[in-house]
Formats: sequence, structure tokens, C-alpha cells
Amino acid sequence: MARWEPNARERLVRAALDLFAEQGYDNTAVAQIAERAGLTKTTFFRHFPDKREVLFAGQETHAQLLADGIAAAPAEATPLEAVAAALDAATASFRPFQREFGPRLLTVVASTAELRERAAFKHAGLAAAMAAALRERGVPEPTAGLAAELGVRAFDAAYARWVDATAGSTFPELARQSLDELRTALISLT
Amino acid sequence: MARWEPNARERLVRAALDLFAEQGYDNTAVAQIAERAGLTKTTFFRHFPDKREVLFAGQETHAQLLADGIAAAPAEATPLEAVAAALDAATASFRPFQREFGPRLLTVVASTAELRERAAFKHAGLAAAMAAALRERGVPEPTAGLAAELGVRAFDAAYARWVDATAGSTFPELARQSLDELRTALISLT
Repeated sequence: MARWEPNARERLVRAALDLFAEQGYDNTAVAQIAERAGLTKTTFFRHFPDKREVLFAGQETHAQLLADGIAAAPAEATPLEAVAAALDAATASFRPFQREFGPRLLTVVASTAELRERAAFKHAGLAAAMAAALRERGVPEPTAGLAAELGVRAFDAAYARWVDATAGSTFPELARQSLDELRTALISLT
Repeated sequence: MARWEPNARERLVRAALDLFAEQGYDNTAVAQIAERAGLTKTTFFRHFPDKREVLFAGQETHAQLLADGIAAAPAEATPLEAVAAALDAATASFRPFQREFGPRLLTVVASTAELRERAAFKHAGLAAAMAAALRERGVPEPTAGLAAELGVRAFDAAYARWVDATAGSTFPELARQSLDELRTALISLT
């Protein structure tokens, strides 16, 4: 990241979301996003490979935080306790501007097939990272994969609640609450 | 589908998988697939929108079979019993050529990021179809979504087992077995 362009990533994300909302995802070019952000196309491509990835830039960071959170959980933690610790770590990293972007992000993803597909891939990628970290702790499959899936579902559900302007809780609190609801649903299934 | 081109879809899938295995997915063009199948590009595009979709052509059919299977389950069936019935219906529709294609299909998908992404979207699409059918039966969220997720995981795990040449069981039998293993994993999580 170039130091002489403060908040370039955030400016690009903001510009992209504004343009996607105003004129549609398909009608927006990288050059327009860069221009709206007051940056060059070269700067854009220093941060993102294409316009789609602007909206999924956090995936690697989140996957790492989730995996590290699972690895750092106490040895005696159950798989779901380790997942809860991972959600604490990942959700605590979110900043106010990510909350502010949330509603527009969810709207553009929901209305664009290409982005829904990318979101499904992100979901699978985060689940795979958590499942690998759980297997490292000795959790066998298919238990590790299921616990990881619950973690990503709790993350997604809590994100949607957090970015809603009426939410009165923190992202970590909402993630714990969503995971509890999923645990209750699990019990109802067995 | 044009009646005067017997098995055109199957021939195109076979040609695509052969070419993807021989020269790679990225290096294969639609024109080559059509030529290898002894068909025209026009015929190709009558069956598939692009080369990627050749490998995911069954998604709509499977989603419908899974949703119908859930809808047709007895009123007193639990969510997982309805999912099991849906897996019976969907897996029983598979034909021997789909088993024969399986190993090459799994290999090319695993080795191509674009196809792994599409596979994640298929997974999400099948889960969404099953979850909607479960909600129609009165199963609330997030229980419906979780039960549907288990169904797709059982489907995927059973498919990988079925296409293995050493498998001695039918696809429906393997799906039931995979679902049972997931149910046991659920219990271990709670």
C-alpha cells in the first residue's frame, strides 16, 4: 500500500459502492471508480485485481483472524467454543466505516449474480480456513467442517444485524448471539 | 434439445472433460469442445451458455428434485427425515455416465479456481432450494438453513464416494450413510 495515498483502499471501496448504487455494478468501470476516489487506475490495481474484488478485499484478513482465533483457543475448548473465540477475534477487527458500508454492500451483492457467486466462494473460503484450524486441534471431519460452517453462518447473520442502523449491540456480541441461535437450532435437529 | 442429435449433452460433457484433462480448462475453447463432440458451436450454445456451465448443467434439475423430495415427505417427517427423502429422490436420478465422469469432474474442479467458485455457488443454490422447501413445511430459520446445509454436504460427500471405482453401494445408499455421519457429528457438537 502506498503511504502517500492515505486511506486509498477505503476511498476506493466507498467510490465503488457509490457508483454501483448509482448506476449499477455492470455499468461501472474501474476507471470511474478510481476517478471518483480521486486516484489513478494504477493505484486501483495496486490495491485490487478488478472491480469485483473491491467488495471482498477483507477475505484473506478475516480467514486469518478466524483461523488464528481457533488456534489460540484454550486446549480444553470444545469445537464450538473455539469457533466462538474465533468470531470474537474476527468481528472485533471491524471498523466503523465497514459498518457504514454494510447496507450498500449487502444490497449490491444481493442484486448481482456475479457478486452472489463471489460471496458464496468467500463463505466457502472462510469455512475451509476454520475447518483446517479445527482439524489442527484434532477435531475430526465431518465435525470440523460443520462447526466451521456454523461459524461462518453466525458471522454472516451477525454482520447483517450489525450494519442495520437500529442494532444496539457490538459486532462481537451479535456474533455470539447468532452462534447461540445456531446451536439451539442444531439441538432441535438432533 | 434437438431430437436429431442423440445424446448431444452427454457428448458435449464428455468432450469437455476429455479436453480439460488433456490440455487444461483455460486452454480449451467452446469450438474445440463442439468439434471433439462431432457437433457445431451452435449446438453447443443450444445446450450451454459457456464452457463452465457444461460442468454444472445438472444444478437446476437437482435443486428441483431436492425441493420436490422435501415437499413430498410425510407431514410428520422431521427436517432431517425430509432431507433424507430429498436425497433419495435426487441421487436416484443419476445415471451410470455421470458416475463415469465423476473422477475427472472432481479433478478439474479442484484444480481450477473459477470452477471451485462455481461449485461453491452451486452448493449455495442447492442449499437455498432445500431451505426454502423446508420453510414451506413450517421449519423456521436458522433450522431450515442448517438442515439444508447438511443435505448438500451429504450429497457432496456421497457423490465423491460413489464415483470412486471401489464403491460397492448405490448413490442413494451412500447419501443416507453420509447424512447419518453428519447427524452423528451434529450430536457431538451439542
